[in-house]
Amino acid sequence: MRIVILLFDGVTALDPIGVCDPLARLPNTEIVFVSETGVPCRTGDGFLSLAPSAAIANVSEADVLLIPGGRPEGIQQCINSEALRSNIKRLDRTTAITGSVCSGSLILGAADLLRGRKAATHWRARDYMAHFGAEYTGDRITRDEKYWTSADVTAGIDLGLAICRHIAGDEIAASIELAMEYDPKPPFGTGNPHNASPKHKSIVAEILRG
Amino acid sequence: MRIVILLFDGVTALDPIGVCDPLARLPNTEIVFVSETGVPCRTGDGFLSLAPSAAIANVSEADVLLIPGGRPEGIQQCINSEALRSNIKRLDRTTAITGSVCSGSLILGAADLLRGRKAATHWRARDYMAHFGAEYTGDRITRDEKYWTSADVTAGIDLGLAICRHIAGDEIAASIELAMEYDPKPPFGTGNPHNASPKHKSIVAEILRG
Repeated sequence: MRIVILLFDGVTALDPIGVCDPLARLPNTEIVFVSETGVPCRTGDGFLSLAPSAAIANVSEADVLLIPGGRPEGIQQCINSEALRSNIKRLDRTTAITGSVCSGSLILGAADLLRGRKAATHWRARDYMAHFGAEYTGDRITRDEKYWTSADVTAGIDLGLAICRHIAGDEIAASIELAMEYDPKPPFGTGNPHNASPKHKSIVAEILRG
Repeated sequence: MRIVILLFDGVTALDPIGVCDPLARLPNTEIVFVSETGVPCRTGDGFLSLAPSAAIANVSEADVLLIPGGRPEGIQQCINSEALRSNIKRLDRTTAITGSVCSGSLILGAADLLRGRKAATHWRARDYMAHFGAEYTGDRITRDEKYWTSADVTAGIDLGLAICRHIAGDEIAASIELAMEYDPKPPFGTGNPHNASPKHKSIVAEILRG
């Protein structure tokens, strides 16, 4: 089983790392981090570089292909790259599962892989889904045939576990949930954007670093 | 505000990245990833390198110092390094908060920073806490004065949010919970090691990659 995860300058570190953690615990599974050219990528917060092991053009096939999200400039740069889009389309033709975390769905959309499909994405990116011919669901995880898309950042952990369940069954996936001690305790209960207060939304937009 | 996070060969990627994500969203905050020598560190699963921006010896002070966990060999190598232990002790003398995720508590313990304190850690590392003079709590997060320790892997996200709350107050931290869309949906409810089934524990120990 080969799982390919894209990195790019501006990627939100927790998007690829959160979806990777449960998948990397599966037996007989290889995770291949790739970037467009194979060089290290700076995370969106600017504090860390993630070093992939290959350029995407040098990977011939993938059982699972996953595209994380990131800062708008980073997403835009991926969307603008015809070479990257065509490598994503090429790999997609070899996958059993193609998926995205957060605004990674915009890259899948730009590669024309979500046309006519239902898709989840970052709540502030929802309007772009129609532009790519997809229908925004607002769900934390949406599966439409082999296309699995998730909402923002931490939803990637849930996506990783859902894919583990699909690949390896309930008992292995439930054990991975234990291995990650995934017994989360959100302190405020404010993590769902669909019932977030205007005050918290405005702090996210105007005060926090994104 | 300067937050220093240690990396080392064998680190579990989600430990430093999970605790970092909420903290990196705080305004006026700099995250400095360090390693013993400043060179990139291979994650415990072997699939990615994380590039720090400095050697720990070159960082003069920190408001917050955080030590993630990782594979036993990686933890042991950190514990064995007298230079690393003394740099951790030196930085700790400058912090308002010193903390750990998962088995990172063993490194804090080896630096003699948990003696006489209550501490959380990875459930399979609990017996080591007494060796370092600390009392294992079994909690997801334990705070003892300025020492904040957490349980396994995903508990680091909760630790990061707890530190955000302490530093920036409820409204900012609640907004960070929204920005991360931290509305987790563990599919099985098996993430708590204190009520895990023997079957899942044995799959974790014998079948999964750690």
